[in-house]
Amino acid sequence: MEIIKDLKKRSSELTDLHHIMALLQWDQEVQIPTNAAQDRAGQLATLSTIIHRKEVSIELGDLLLEAEKQIAHLSETDRALIRVMRRSYDQSTKLPEQFVADFSRLTSQALNVWVEARKRSDFKMFSPLLEKIVSMCREQAEYLGYTNEPYDALLDLYEEGLTTTQVASLFEEIKDPLTEMVHRAKQMPQQEINISKDLERRRQTEFAEQALQKIGFDFTRGRQDVSAHPFTTTMGHNDRRVTNRYNPRSLEFIFSALHEGGHALYEQGISSDLNHTALDNGVSLGIHESQSRLWENIIGRSLPFWQNLYPNLKEHFPGLFDNLSIEEFVKGINVIKPGLIRVEADEVSYNLHVLIRFEIEKGLMEGSLPVKDLPVVWNQKYKEYLDVEVDSDANGVLQDIHWAHGSLGYFPTYTIGNMAAAQFWHKFTQLHQDYEAIIAGGTLEKIRTWLTENIYRHGSVYQPAELLQKVTGEGLNPQYFLDYLRQKFRLPDPMT
Amino acid sequence: MEIIKDLKKRSSELTDLHHIMALLQWDQEVQIPTNAAQDRAGQLATLSTIIHRKEVSIELGDLLLEAEKQIAHLSETDRALIRVMRRSYDQSTKLPEQFVADFSRLTSQALNVWVEARKRSDFKMFSPLLEKIVSMCREQAEYLGYTNEPYDALLDLYEEGLTTTQVASLFEEIKDPLTEMVHRAKQMPQQEINISKDLERRRQTEFAEQALQKIGFDFTRGRQDVSAHPFTTTMGHNDRRVTNRYNPRSLEFIFSALHEGGHALYEQGISSDLNHTALDNGVSLGIHESQSRLWENIIGRSLPFWQNLYPNLKEHFPGLFDNLSIEEFVKGINVIKPGLIRVEADEVSYNLHVLIRFEIEKGLMEGSLPVKDLPVVWNQKYKEYLDVEVDSDANGVLQDIHWAHGSLGYFPTYTIGNMAAAQFWHKFTQLHQDYEAIIAGGTLEKIRTWLTENIYRHGSVYQPAELLQKVTGEGLNPQYFLDYLRQKFRLPDPMT
Repeated sequence: MEIIKDLKKRSSELTDLHHIMALLQWDQEVQIPTNAAQDRAGQLATLSTIIHRKEVSIELGDLLLEAEKQIAHLSETDRALIRVMRRSYDQSTKLPEQFVADFSRLTSQALNVWVEARKRSDFKMFSPLLEKIVSMCREQAEYLGYTNEPYDALLDLYEEGLTTTQVASLFEEIKDPLTEMVHRAKQMPQQEINISKDLERRRQTEFAEQALQKIGFDFTRGRQDVSAHPFTTTMGHNDRRVTNRYNPRSLEFIFSALHEGGHALYEQGISSDLNHTALDNGVSLGIHESQSRLWENIIGRSLPFWQNLYPNLKEHFPGLFDNLSIEEFVKGINVIKPGLIRVEADEVSYNLHVLIRFEIEKGLMEGSLPVKDLPVVWNQKYKEYLDVEVDSDANGVLQDIHWAHGSLGYFPTYTIGNMAAAQFWHKFTQLHQDYEAIIAGGTLEKIRTWLTENIYRHGSVYQPAELLQKVTGEGLNPQYFLDYLRQKFRLPDPMT
Repeated sequence: MEIIKDLKKRSSELTDLHHIMALLQWDQEVQIPTNAAQDRAGQLATLSTIIHRKEVSIELGDLLLEAEKQIAHLSETDRALIRVMRRSYDQSTKLPEQFVADFSRLTSQALNVWVEARKRSDFKMFSPLLEKIVSMCREQAEYLGYTNEPYDALLDLYEEGLTTTQVASLFEEIKDPLTEMVHRAKQMPQQEINISKDLERRRQTEFAEQALQKIGFDFTRGRQDVSAHPFTTTMGHNDRRVTNRYNPRSLEFIFSALHEGGHALYEQGISSDLNHTALDNGVSLGIHESQSRLWENIIGRSLPFWQNLYPNLKEHFPGLFDNLSIEEFVKGINVIKPGLIRVEADEVSYNLHVLIRFEIEKGLMEGSLPVKDLPVVWNQKYKEYLDVEVDSDANGVLQDIHWAHGSLGYFPTYTIGNMAAAQFWHKFTQLHQDYEAIIAGGTLEKIRTWLTENIYRHGSVYQPAELLQKVTGEGLNPQYFLDYLRQKFRLPDPMT
């Protein structure tokens, strides 16, 4: 038991240091003086080095080996702690230092070139670097190890246990139905919401705060601030912060608040028993995304939600929504409109953006798709799945930062999240058939309590697939997501 | 030269870590969610431990010894770096770990008790802890070492090289003149400024920002935020932040802005050559305070300063100052009014508050003054020097946090700062006899440039006394401060 105590002490120290990192980064995104970026870069490097040395220490490796020998006698939580610390230890130690340094140098260079290439809309400029990145990602996979395909090793980095075969089969199930929905939607006239005058920033901030309060974000254990891109971060068990951004002619800030709020509710809901351990985090990107999407889309874009909140919105922005019925408003925030840009996509077509990236990453990793062919393949797929013509590399293959960042394997988690959200939600609605009344009632506590009890409080104790099984009684099943979309957008199932 | 390179590398790492500490603390004072205090305490403890281990490492000690052997061959800056690192190394290593832990536990307990004792205005409650603190401060002095008296060791912690004899003699010179000024001021009718309606917080913040901009605070290399007590901190060579607080019926925020702005100008003015070294800080509390007081009082409460700024103030708070001439306004911000509370004191009587604390600390350290006698002695001295009756321990001997914090030896630096400010300023006015026109002109650049050239850019390269000598041609001489006060308050020198 001394071993577990020692492991926990190390986990606690590392948790503190990671939370300190999070504060340094949050401050950098939110409020750092313009000329202090280089100072901060140095501090991040210094702290990273200290953390890295602790994460790869031989003593930690020995402790983990000892602990694993005794695993049968340990509690579920202690076993989970060992699992998560082992994962992190392996991810840190399996990659040779030289490889990590080279990869870091490469992606840092690639990020700069990508910014410039996107500005000039010139994929050829970026392509040699992407080739190197793909080749290093293959190397990375070899170092990390995998059972079937190299790409599995990358997927597992973001979604523990996820495999290429599994993603391919999940995406296969949604590909045709979503493509058809998107194509059909293109034929139907849909009315977007037109904001006829600038929304005052202060009032946007206040309303975003109200929305966060409504879903149960605890402001005594978090904050809301402003940054160029909204994000959620954790700098303490009782310190989970979200950011937002405010465009004067857009309602996006509301859905950003609900999205980041969903991430934060997950983190705020983790049991205090897991404080100061590596388990005090959401378990994976996919499960995390399931919570942001659940609050943003499934609840936050529903009629009952706005039955409760629409009067507040009208009051908050006098005159702006006078001629818009609540039904028109809710339709307006649920327009399906396939476009070129993933981050601007609606709930349905979003997943086709992700699908395209998955197919391309898979091809790149297998070697069946040469980097130079990317723009052509990209544009073909956008035509085929989304029925849109890509006008430039900037609005096409160069739009996302992920590849420049070396993060192949990340994209699928977005859609995994959508699928899991629908599956969790289906379970909840089975147990609470009055779910619409619950949402319309305004106190969403019943929902939050259920999510906390079943998902949030466990932190990283259960692996993603295990958690899904435990809560819903089955593995990830994309039919719930399809059913949800069909019901919401009132399109009959083409198969029935 | 390898040794210097290695020392610089260590200094750079430690500088980064101290800046990270500063961010953790700043965030805690400015914006941390209410329930996250304990998380932050843990992070501070974790990082402190890491820093402490690096600061007391045997390798660092060996390096310093090696470097000191070669000191004759080194540049002035490198010699200074060794001096500052040696000071910090000795301060960290001379105290046994057990002592540091015990002292930390004691002061942490004392802080809690002090808060409660002050609330109840009950010195007896606090007195046993203060006895222990005094006794541990004596021990601390023995560990640190001193030439003449134990109290010297404590003074040196805050003001390098300062001794008890020196403080006693400096204070002896100002004691009678200031006492007399204060007593005389009590007889004269003085008109304070009456704020007849609440000042809007947003407009206070804006005006404080204008005031900071006016004295040359660089907002691309710093920020202004809100905290319970105004302070200045550094989290990077290009990241020096000030805070302020806003009371709806007070102009204090303006002088807080100028005070903290003065501290920040010093730090922002340090040469970039000293970046990432232990020299990238103001050299001592006294010299630091000389800069905050110079900008706050000598410049910031002068008629020429307000000739420039008063129209802005009137415009910023319409109607509030319509019936107040600029002369009346400047008199109003310079009222001498002896009172019970140090932090609310005017420029003259402030130093008598400090003098009292010095006399008491000296007595405590020598053993000539038993802790139990403090309230009586305190109240006698307040009657004698300030001609005020202390109504309670809360408004008397319990008013300051310093002793609970274990910081004996700190108080004198406030008055050392006032003296040094006047001495520096005298030098400037000798060189620039048109100094009133310079201030009234509004661009204070000439002043800032001179201070930067002579004081700021050097960071901690010169010891406090050395710097004063270099800039003004003599050691600390309190006559400049007395002359400044006499001239300002137009009281004839009683000695002439």
